[in-house]
Amino acid sequence: MTYIIVFDVNETLLDLAPVREWFTERFDDVPDAAAWFSELLRLSFVSSVIDRYTPFTELAAAALGTVAGRCETRINDDDLSTIRSLLTNLPAHSDASSGLDRLRSSGFTLAALTNSPQPTAEAQLSNADISDHFDVIMSVDMVRRFKPHRSVYRAAAERLGTEPSKLVMVAAHDWDIAGAMAAGADGVFIERPGQRYSPSFPEPTITAANLDIAASEIDERYS
Amino acid sequence: MTYIIVFDVNETLLDLAPVREWFTERFDDVPDAAAWFSELLRLSFVSSVIDRYTPFTELAAAALGTVAGRCETRINDDDLSTIRSLLTNLPAHSDASSGLDRLRSSGFTLAALTNSPQPTAEAQLSNADISDHFDVIMSVDMVRRFKPHRSVYRAAAERLGTEPSKLVMVAAHDWDIAGAMAAGADGVFIERPGQRYSPSFPEPTITAANLDIAASEIDERYS
Repeated sequence: MTYIIVFDVNETLLDLAPVREWFTERFDDVPDAAAWFSELLRLSFVSSVIDRYTPFTELAAAALGTVAGRCETRINDDDLSTIRSLLTNLPAHSDASSGLDRLRSSGFTLAALTNSPQPTAEAQLSNADISDHFDVIMSVDMVRRFKPHRSVYRAAAERLGTEPSKLVMVAAHDWDIAGAMAAGADGVFIERPGQRYSPSFPEPTITAANLDIAASEIDERYS
Repeated sequence: MTYIIVFDVNETLLDLAPVREWFTERFDDVPDAAAWFSELLRLSFVSSVIDRYTPFTELAAAALGTVAGRCETRINDDDLSTIRSLLTNLPAHSDASSGLDRLRSSGFTLAALTNSPQPTAEAQLSNADISDHFDVIMSVDMVRRFKPHRSVYRAAAERLGTEPSKLVMVAAHDWDIAGAMAAGADGVFIERPGQRYSPSFPEPTITAANLDIAASEIDERYS
């Protein structure tokens, strides 16, 4: 089996619903979790462009302060520890375990590649009860740049003892697919609710409504 | 006078209010112009990270399609030409002309540096009746990467016959200041309504509520 299937973690495998619920309870709808996650991603993109690395969890805290501040709300230490704990204990999406199982049964090597720091990534997958499906769990920590910087996917390929062209990146975010494809990998876009693929980026190799369908299409194409 | 003052264009000098009004009329509040501009910036950041250049005006059109599509609305050719025309004909902020005037009277060289393509940038500043204030109008076209990529600020310094450390970047966006400072320039953040400076980025050299105040502080510090 020459291809290695690489999974993004947050939103792709893990469900951010508990974070969404907490935002609604804590802030009465404004700001919402989408605004926070979008600010977090903005910080990570800019950090990559200007080559200034700050761990994703710290950017998550800064983003929380900013979106709350826009609504004249102050966040406190309890908020920060709540969101940290929620992020580390996200449940797996209902299709994650079955999708991963199918690919493992077919003999693929499976890897996780996330913007979360290494210890957070390991805790997240373990708490969601899906860490056993992975041969390798990797964080962008190893290159101190965030996805979608090409150096991340190249470092992942090297760590896996292969070339980027033998990686198939599975993600619910168009920028992650675009970055992987720019590095030479194939890309599988999972259409999680609310996620759209911008026509500005190269078309994904496969687009699937969920991980079960994705697994079946990956199996067919790359086995 | 050794320092050259470099101005961002959209939102910093030009007022996006007509775009905001058009969104409200056209889409009945959802999506709004903030969502569109934020999607446009997202596309530009990701493009810089993966090193895939598409002119800003094309990203603006793609972003319009995406934010409208999220609300199950389709955009048509009229929408695209309307937003293109609005963007090319934005009015100057009320403090733009006086702020630029003051700095010019003090003898500073003034430059514009924008993500807009070169012909768009020139038309924008001319239509807003402020192009005469500038010695040089520059677009990221010259390096085919968007701000805040450091290569943009370095190319601007070279074009101006100076070093990045002699540039003072004036912008209403934290990422633009962060990029300029990462390239070695100083940064002046203009607090336009709704704009906040993320604590994740290096603190600006000067923060000012408008361009008149900024001009006065720049004059004092760099003359």
